[in-house]
Amino acid sequence: MFVNKMPRYEILSADAIAVLERGWRRIVSEIGIQFAKPEAVELFAKAGQQVDGDVVKLDPEFVLEQVAKAPREFDVQARNPANNVHIGGDNMVFGAVYGCPFVREGDVRRDATMQDFRQLSMLSQAYPELDTAGGVICEPNDAPLDSRHLDMIYALATLTDKFYMGNVVSGPNAADTIKMTEILLGGREAIERTPALISLINCNSPLRWDDRMLDAQFEYCAAAQPVVLTPFLLMGAMSPVTIPAALTQQLAEALSGIALAQLIRPGCPVIFGSFLSNIDMQSGSPSFGTPESALGLLCTGQLARHYGLPFRTGGGLNSSQTADAQSAYEALMTLLPTFLAGTNFVMHSAGWLEGGLVSCYEKFIIDVELLRELRVEFTPLEIDEASLAFGAHEEVGHGGHFLGAAHTMERFRDCFYRPMLSSTANFERWLKLGAKDTAARAGEIWRKKLEDFTPPPLDDAIRAELDDYVARRRRELGD
Amino acid sequence: MFVNKMPRYEILSADAIAVLERGWRRIVSEIGIQFAKPEAVELFAKAGQQVDGDVVKLDPEFVLEQVAKAPREFDVQARNPANNVHIGGDNMVFGAVYGCPFVREGDVRRDATMQDFRQLSMLSQAYPELDTAGGVICEPNDAPLDSRHLDMIYALATLTDKFYMGNVVSGPNAADTIKMTEILLGGREAIERTPALISLINCNSPLRWDDRMLDAQFEYCAAAQPVVLTPFLLMGAMSPVTIPAALTQQLAEALSGIALAQLIRPGCPVIFGSFLSNIDMQSGSPSFGTPESALGLLCTGQLARHYGLPFRTGGGLNSSQTADAQSAYEALMTLLPTFLAGTNFVMHSAGWLEGGLVSCYEKFIIDVELLRELRVEFTPLEIDEASLAFGAHEEVGHGGHFLGAAHTMERFRDCFYRPMLSSTANFERWLKLGAKDTAARAGEIWRKKLEDFTPPPLDDAIRAELDDYVARRRRELGD
Repeated sequence: MFVNKMPRYEILSADAIAVLERGWRRIVSEIGIQFAKPEAVELFAKAGQQVDGDVVKLDPEFVLEQVAKAPREFDVQARNPANNVHIGGDNMVFGAVYGCPFVREGDVRRDATMQDFRQLSMLSQAYPELDTAGGVICEPNDAPLDSRHLDMIYALATLTDKFYMGNVVSGPNAADTIKMTEILLGGREAIERTPALISLINCNSPLRWDDRMLDAQFEYCAAAQPVVLTPFLLMGAMSPVTIPAALTQQLAEALSGIALAQLIRPGCPVIFGSFLSNIDMQSGSPSFGTPESALGLLCTGQLARHYGLPFRTGGGLNSSQTADAQSAYEALMTLLPTFLAGTNFVMHSAGWLEGGLVSCYEKFIIDVELLRELRVEFTPLEIDEASLAFGAHEEVGHGGHFLGAAHTMERFRDCFYRPMLSSTANFERWLKLGAKDTAARAGEIWRKKLEDFTPPPLDDAIRAELDDYVARRRRELGD
Repeated sequence: MFVNKMPRYEILSADAIAVLERGWRRIVSEIGIQFAKPEAVELFAKAGQQVDGDVVKLDPEFVLEQVAKAPREFDVQARNPANNVHIGGDNMVFGAVYGCPFVREGDVRRDATMQDFRQLSMLSQAYPELDTAGGVICEPNDAPLDSRHLDMIYALATLTDKFYMGNVVSGPNAADTIKMTEILLGGREAIERTPALISLINCNSPLRWDDRMLDAQFEYCAAAQPVVLTPFLLMGAMSPVTIPAALTQQLAEALSGIALAQLIRPGCPVIFGSFLSNIDMQSGSPSFGTPESALGLLCTGQLARHYGLPFRTGGGLNSSQTADAQSAYEALMTLLPTFLAGTNFVMHSAGWLEGGLVSCYEKFIIDVELLRELRVEFTPLEIDEASLAFGAHEEVGHGGHFLGAAHTMERFRDCFYRPMLSSTANFERWLKLGAKDTAARAGEIWRKKLEDFTPPPLDDAIRAELDDYVARRRRELGD
């Protein structure tokens, strides 16, 4: 977890916020939000909201009353208490890429497997810059579909001792996730007291929450586990093509999902979610790392703070097909604004490639390097008389150099950021080292990191109980 | 020229600025600044400053009085008035890379030639994101040393119709630059009225201004041509290893150089220069695109504004050996803060590779893409009722899509940033297009751009006069 004490970069005026506020109020009250789950509609009806089939027309004041029940900040526990996190305020929590059907290692792009899932979990465990491996760090296509979620949660629970994200494919999958996490952390009461899962509930934008996602949301909220209510907005496809329109829609969708969470269980922790980019109007493909997405991200942070909610944006997003220059500049075009906005929960922080279709091992390492750098860049300077090193100037004088100055010698080990991946080798030395570009060097780093990996210790009894649970549920699911 | 109307990202408190202010005052008054040119020392002595050999101990109040004579903003004329720029305020002016002895095209790294100089000038002319090719866009090693500056200025004057930077290798070279620019723009009076050259005067940090640079400064300031007084600070070598110390030293050096400019010619336009990064304490090589350099950059902007001076920072700096991921993320790690700081004059905006040793054609194109994106990203949003596109929501409803909505159809051509280099092609299409990474695509783009190049028109009489001048001076210089 990183505590970002640098200033927020805010670009919306009070007037602009008021316009956006009027916008979402009009959407929820005049067009309404569709909830494809009767229990959800029923909760809204009981609370006095106007229902027409599965569309709920919401009173904006009612929405804000519900939103006000959500905590501004909350803890999430990991099985290793040193990895507990706090969501909200100045805290930034980072998870790896989520949801990719493919992986890339070097020049090979192929279907992701359970072995990839394990390896990427191990890498997430190995780097302290990541607070969680996330959830679906890749889609293990070789694992049986019905019981795949068990294998994934088992890997996350055993190969990492950080918190992880819940499966959201269905209500029963969510229930399995919760049960396994209870086993890991000492029972239902323990995880209701301090939540242990954060789960991603995506809106089927525009203005529709789907049944399977809602089933999962009901499970998690009932167990007091936080959900990230995330409008999924690629402007031009799932929202209008203007950023203000997308922001307004995002507010309407996220706030309506948060209101539902509070109806399911008042006080349930939530995260205001944002996944906001645009399609390329020439190719029809999604674009990431665009100027529009950076602007949307900065605005989202400001709006979430306006409504007193922790928020999720950002990550190392890009559209590139390989771990090349584009993948890097698009990733940073998203990650740097993520730090400027002070995002509380950052999914897709490491490994994202090709519009999220690919978990890339080399890109994972590149992103970790970026996260390491940004942590230094967003640490406030200490400026006092001593930091001015006047004595060093007296020692060195005019036209000299500071390499051997006492002030330098005392500090040379940790005065500057030490790169893990970036090279400053001069050209001759770089040639001698094999003339490896960044992706090639990243390939060596992740392989070495996996070789050196030691799984975090886990109590044998807990492991056995998890094994039993998985075996039983696998039988029940017929896999 | 880009007008940056977004907020500045400021990270220094008033207290911190006061500490830094006390710091430079102490350096200039107690340690003093070395000026390796008797005429400079004499000017300071005449103005009542304490002189000890070539070291001048400056009264800080005197320095600030001189600094106050410099204009806060000024115009620079180009031979095509459409390319005139205004330095200061919200304006950002961009120049290409400067000073590289080598070039890279694709996998080939070699000595730079005059032909490279011409080609890189043509590319700078071709992209409107660049306001100037700069000066030494690469070092043409195949041109005779003594008359090389004539060839370079001739290329800049004829292949571009943007302003260019003056040669600073010696006083006579500066005088030649000024003469040729007089020919181009209608005489001495014309360029004294509105300056036409910006020249880079580097400090031999710490705390020493060298004779040849000062010779050039005297020529340019006497002709009322702006100079960028730039402390050259790689922390750990030319300055202490703490950022506050580097900032303090930077103030001492830049303000002393600016004071000299005002003694040479009161009111001479100047730019507060910054070139601030650090050495890698492991390799001893310079590092670029570091967190420390980004922090230094943000602080520099704030300090320059504090003293009412236009400033120079930033660029697409990096230490990478090829146009790979590192080159891109380090470049953006510098360029994005450059926009956050609202830098008035940005050298090295396109083409910089390998710590500035290499002008890289592919990196040039990557940087232009970044500049194009950042211009969009730093354009304020217009947020009003109409931008919310409520009608589009009424049209599309719940769970639909906006691809064919009237609001989208009216705007699809220019609603989003259109990439020049970045690819959003899906994997199959990307394979079909040759599986080219970003650098390979950039290689195609610059070659096509050069093929399509048409030089800007130039009056025959002026060209003839320039030819005569170059021929005469070449004879005089014995080349």
